[in-house]
Amino acid sequence: MDKLAVLGCGVVGSGVVELFAKNQALIEKRCGKKLQMAYILDLRDFPDRPYADLLVKNIDPILADPDVTVVAECMGGVEPAFTFVKACLEAGKSVSTSNKELVAEKGDILLQTAKAHNVNFFFEASVGGAIPIIRPLHKCLAANDFSAIAGILNGTTNFILNQMIKENMDFSTALALAQEKGYAEKDPTADVDGHDACRKICILSSLAFGKHVYPDRVHTKGIREVTLRDVELCSRLGYAIKLIARVQRLDNGKILPTVMPMAVEEDDLLSHVNGVYNAVMVRGDGISKAMFYGRGAGKFPTASAVLGDMIEQVQLDHTIPSLTWENAGNSDFLEDLTAFTAERYIRTTAADEMLLKEVFGALKENSVYTEEDETVCIVSRPMNEADVEAAAKTLTQKGVTLLAQYPVLVD
Amino acid sequence: MDKLAVLGCGVVGSGVVELFAKNQALIEKRCGKKLQMAYILDLRDFPDRPYADLLVKNIDPILADPDVTVVAECMGGVEPAFTFVKACLEAGKSVSTSNKELVAEKGDILLQTAKAHNVNFFFEASVGGAIPIIRPLHKCLAANDFSAIAGILNGTTNFILNQMIKENMDFSTALALAQEKGYAEKDPTADVDGHDACRKICILSSLAFGKHVYPDRVHTKGIREVTLRDVELCSRLGYAIKLIARVQRLDNGKILPTVMPMAVEEDDLLSHVNGVYNAVMVRGDGISKAMFYGRGAGKFPTASAVLGDMIEQVQLDHTIPSLTWENAGNSDFLEDLTAFTAERYIRTTAADEMLLKEVFGALKENSVYTEEDETVCIVSRPMNEADVEAAAKTLTQKGVTLLAQYPVLVD
Repeated sequence: MDKLAVLGCGVVGSGVVELFAKNQALIEKRCGKKLQMAYILDLRDFPDRPYADLLVKNIDPILADPDVTVVAECMGGVEPAFTFVKACLEAGKSVSTSNKELVAEKGDILLQTAKAHNVNFFFEASVGGAIPIIRPLHKCLAANDFSAIAGILNGTTNFILNQMIKENMDFSTALALAQEKGYAEKDPTADVDGHDACRKICILSSLAFGKHVYPDRVHTKGIREVTLRDVELCSRLGYAIKLIARVQRLDNGKILPTVMPMAVEEDDLLSHVNGVYNAVMVRGDGISKAMFYGRGAGKFPTASAVLGDMIEQVQLDHTIPSLTWENAGNSDFLEDLTAFTAERYIRTTAADEMLLKEVFGALKENSVYTEEDETVCIVSRPMNEADVEAAAKTLTQKGVTLLAQYPVLVD
Repeated sequence: MDKLAVLGCGVVGSGVVELFAKNQALIEKRCGKKLQMAYILDLRDFPDRPYADLLVKNIDPILADPDVTVVAECMGGVEPAFTFVKACLEAGKSVSTSNKELVAEKGDILLQTAKAHNVNFFFEASVGGAIPIIRPLHKCLAANDFSAIAGILNGTTNFILNQMIKENMDFSTALALAQEKGYAEKDPTADVDGHDACRKICILSSLAFGKHVYPDRVHTKGIREVTLRDVELCSRLGYAIKLIARVQRLDNGKILPTVMPMAVEEDDLLSHVNGVYNAVMVRGDGISKAMFYGRGAGKFPTASAVLGDMIEQVQLDHTIPSLTWENAGNSDFLEDLTAFTAERYIRTTAADEMLLKEVFGALKENSVYTEEDETVCIVSRPMNEADVEAAAKTLTQKGVTLLAQYPVLVD
């Protein structure tokens, strides 16, 4: 008999307790072991819930009980989660967390602590909610040398952009609707400005490339400046604007993680990922590419991922070597935005097509759209940031203004 | 040091050897162990290949070497693969197979043999090629009670249907192109008539619902009768015709596996899975739904899946309880096609809309398309097979002929 404990009885924590209670017989069969939900740590009381008698206000009884083999951390934030998780690992208990901030900020330390105590620090729920992505990356695809990962990792911004594309809503109206539906927080900064997606691509980058990537080293741009006009015009050229969290390995072996709105071709499955769903596309030398899709958040989807980790843990008696990465060290394995090159969706004021060809390269068929002799949209040759800046200058000299530009995703 | 062996040096087997050689350092790091490719079983000689000295013509040295901990079976077919795999398991060696025929026909026996000898019988590569689906199903999603799985599990038929949809090719021309490109065999029966997809949905059904499902118990219909006319008209109503392998759990607790062409709504991500790609949508009570997408076949994609299993195995010293299912027993957990109910895309000869409403139920908005006063297409209310038969009879009495019908996928 293994005992389970849950830290934090909020949305996700209560989901873990309830989904476990619902499917306990099935879960025990799949584990090959009897399990018992034994402790729930929360400072609040929940007298009316069926699991009220499991609540404790202090972590000590959990740390002291040798039968507790795995703990779910669903508190969120770096502290006190970090202190509690570290204490659990040091007490020989594996931990499964849904807390992306904790993993993105302290993952390397906690993975080392887990290894030192022959247990595991799991975090399937920290990226993509219900979507199995962490275990597929480090187990199923462990024979692959990865070259890129690109994902829609934030459901709130994907919902907002989707409303703009499908319902012709502007950004503010779509944000208000997302807040009304409970998809966006009252303070939507973490979602809208890309910080949430940034934490998640840091976690995926660290796991795929083996060194901790810190969020503050990642170029991160959100969707506040995306206009309805660009969403519409981009769509005429056959692209959807999506907030893409991405990491690519460059020819020099360094990696370049970014979070920014990008133009995604209609032929690309990511362009059809709608609403609050998330998806992650992975490129490796064995698989070519694979995609994982599902609910990026929510009580039971996230609880499903936490419990999946706990179920694996009760069958293990060692640290999984592939589930780890190193300290960042001097971070010289990271490239910055100057190394980023991509075709661009470009919108300018009225301009001669010959001039645009000169500045942006030979244009592809059907890649020019002119509206009311006022605006021209094109898809450029591959350009880096300096190229775009130089092009904007040249255009200005000819009386043309560069109004917007979004890099085109190649995943 | 663990030694690896590969049975069969065809496309997949040589892929396993070559991908391992390419990424050996990375793989060993992820395993936390040194590995050695030690034996390749094949009756043929390959004197010019770099691994020529590893070739053996008899399985005995593999069985006799105690350092061989995991064996890849990439021979295909039931025999001699079954005899060899069983012998490996009985000798205390885990096996990873890419052979869907073997798993669909003999999976229950081999899983029991593995358990009796404290090793594992892995088969990630047997469904969906490169796509991680077996491990996600039984590990990542192990906290879920599954209700349905629906997938595009055969790349050849998906390529053919895609050519029909996008290029207006008829079935025979598209099949000839698939053969020319090497996507279809000279004798395309196994793909085109749905047998390959059937084996794969049997494997997924067995794993998700815990009892062996044999291919001959599954209603299987291929794509030979799909006409270009229906592909076009279906698309006018907003659906794509895809070969869908599916299993659903009914209210009575029994399961209903099917393989047949279905009409998939444009809003459904499966409708956008194009070319030779495969995808699997899974429904569970925790996750709501999740989808897995990637290359369904090919040398390195399949090798990636086989190696992923081998990498997991060298870290394990026990049978994974969740990776198993029981014998089929009397098979009374299976429902047949009479229990199948779905909305239907329907095509008839010219008919009065009132008559169609009477026979097929209140029609949804935009669900009627009339062409040249000759053909009418509609989407019906949910109907079972008997309902459709009765409707066809009523129509005949009024001088109208039911020309085609495809069930609509709800995944």
